[in-house]
Amino acid sequence: MSRIAYVNGLYVPHAEAAVHVEDRGYQFADGVYEVCEVRGGKMVDERRHMQRLVRSLGEIHIRLPMPLAALGVVLRETIRRNRVRDGIVYLQVTRGVARRDHYFPDPSTPPSIVVTARASDPARAEASAAQGVGVITVPENRWDRVDIKTVGLLPNVLAKEQAKTAGAREAWFVDKEGRVTEGGSTNAWIVTAEGRIVTRPAEAGILRGITRTVVFEVAEKLQLRVEERAFTVAEALAAREAFITAASTVVMPVVRIDGHPVGEGRPGPVARALRETFHQVAEVAD
Amino acid sequence: MSRIAYVNGLYVPHAEAAVHVEDRGYQFADGVYEVCEVRGGKMVDERRHMQRLVRSLGEIHIRLPMPLAALGVVLRETIRRNRVRDGIVYLQVTRGVARRDHYFPDPSTPPSIVVTARASDPARAEASAAQGVGVITVPENRWDRVDIKTVGLLPNVLAKEQAKTAGAREAWFVDKEGRVTEGGSTNAWIVTAEGRIVTRPAEAGILRGITRTVVFEVAEKLQLRVEERAFTVAEALAAREAFITAASTVVMPVVRIDGHPVGEGRPGPVARALRETFHQVAEVAD
Repeated sequence: MSRIAYVNGLYVPHAEAAVHVEDRGYQFADGVYEVCEVRGGKMVDERRHMQRLVRSLGEIHIRLPMPLAALGVVLRETIRRNRVRDGIVYLQVTRGVARRDHYFPDPSTPPSIVVTARASDPARAEASAAQGVGVITVPENRWDRVDIKTVGLLPNVLAKEQAKTAGAREAWFVDKEGRVTEGGSTNAWIVTAEGRIVTRPAEAGILRGITRTVVFEVAEKLQLRVEERAFTVAEALAAREAFITAASTVVMPVVRIDGHPVGEGRPGPVARALRETFHQVAEVAD
Repeated sequence: MSRIAYVNGLYVPHAEAAVHVEDRGYQFADGVYEVCEVRGGKMVDERRHMQRLVRSLGEIHIRLPMPLAALGVVLRETIRRNRVRDGIVYLQVTRGVARRDHYFPDPSTPPSIVVTARASDPARAEASAAQGVGVITVPENRWDRVDIKTVGLLPNVLAKEQAKTAGAREAWFVDKEGRVTEGGSTNAWIVTAEGRIVTRPAEAGILRGITRTVVFEVAEKLQLRVEERAFTVAEALAAREAFITAASTVVMPVVRIDGHPVGEGRPGPVARALRETFHQVAEVAD
């Protein structure tokens, strides 16, 4: 089946989905994005993803290009036209097209919107989750505003490629104090020897993951205690379990950090329970 | 006259110059660029810009998409087709088009190349230089690898927009020690009360500007002494002169920092001499 993309008002064949070379997303990384899980043909946590989109746009002073209700229609239509049952929908908004100049263009410049959707293979994701994945650690080298979900992802790209080269799935950024901030495209978690779930507060230094937020509710439902505090790599290596979360991977057990096993080197019961319960808690609206 | 852009092998009308929405430059800021001054229809310091391009690409493991000689032909042809006498030529290379995934795509994926050129108004630039410009200072908040000339320019965009709002031309990033790193799109310089020209070393924390490098040679020709060391905002405010350098602005006197006058609040003789002598030293090849 041929894929369809939504680009600035039109649904076009994926192969022809193009933006102008002077789109500020291309020349300045002047834009933000969201990735939303699609499950059974429906978006998971759409409301929260849209809230975060609005926040990201506000932080860099790009106006919302259309009302959220209309954007929801576009997202749903893109999912429908691509016949995605299980997968993701991707949305990018940039400051639009203008003669290259760092300063913001004229305020009348319409923001650009691109939406794509694609299927993923749930069986493959489950196989990964059953085995667990490895992570490596790399020094935090990103800008100070990683709380904004911008398309300026080159540091993340380089870190994740380094992970892949090392046979791992994800790279965890580690701050100057030796504490994990987050992964290249996921939030980072551990389960301590005492059974407490620990993840870094989202006040600074990380993106407030939507999946991360929902995992707090899932933990509550499971009567598991979550502590929001930074943890070191040493703590993670001594932990009973570790895992990562993102819309595209949900909860994924981490069984190796820099080649060393976490706990017994197998996915643990807490990560498994969170993963299994996640979709009972996450919001799915029609 | 209608503008022409070079996009992945074709010269196309500027209005139709497009890249795919899954070009990694658009979704990940996974690319680098160069801006070269054009003077009398010829590129200034092409050799050094191409050297820096090769270095930037190497640092992020993108292969040079064509031999430098061929790239030179494209740059010259784009200048010619746009009939640019005085202006700039812009070159961007990204990791190419691939299904969205942080990891590098298959190594066979061809990098994308975009080249644009446009005229500027030398009289207007001279008027700016005669008056001098203002800068503001903002906290350094960019990633650690600003030595690579990537298109991940959102922090620079936000800083420069803040400058514009404050009635200034440029924003100087200031590190945690209170020392100026560089401007949003320029290198930063002062002339001390003792007449010494000071600019930050290019070992770390800044981009090694081509214009910056040439200014060292211009200073030598003028028998002026340059010290490579970091300077604080306080030092800059107490300086006799300040100026900024970039390919698109050459040497531009700074007469106000955060609203306070530098020296007598007028362009000084050192900046003027460097600006006037610059093109006697900069390389122009046929």
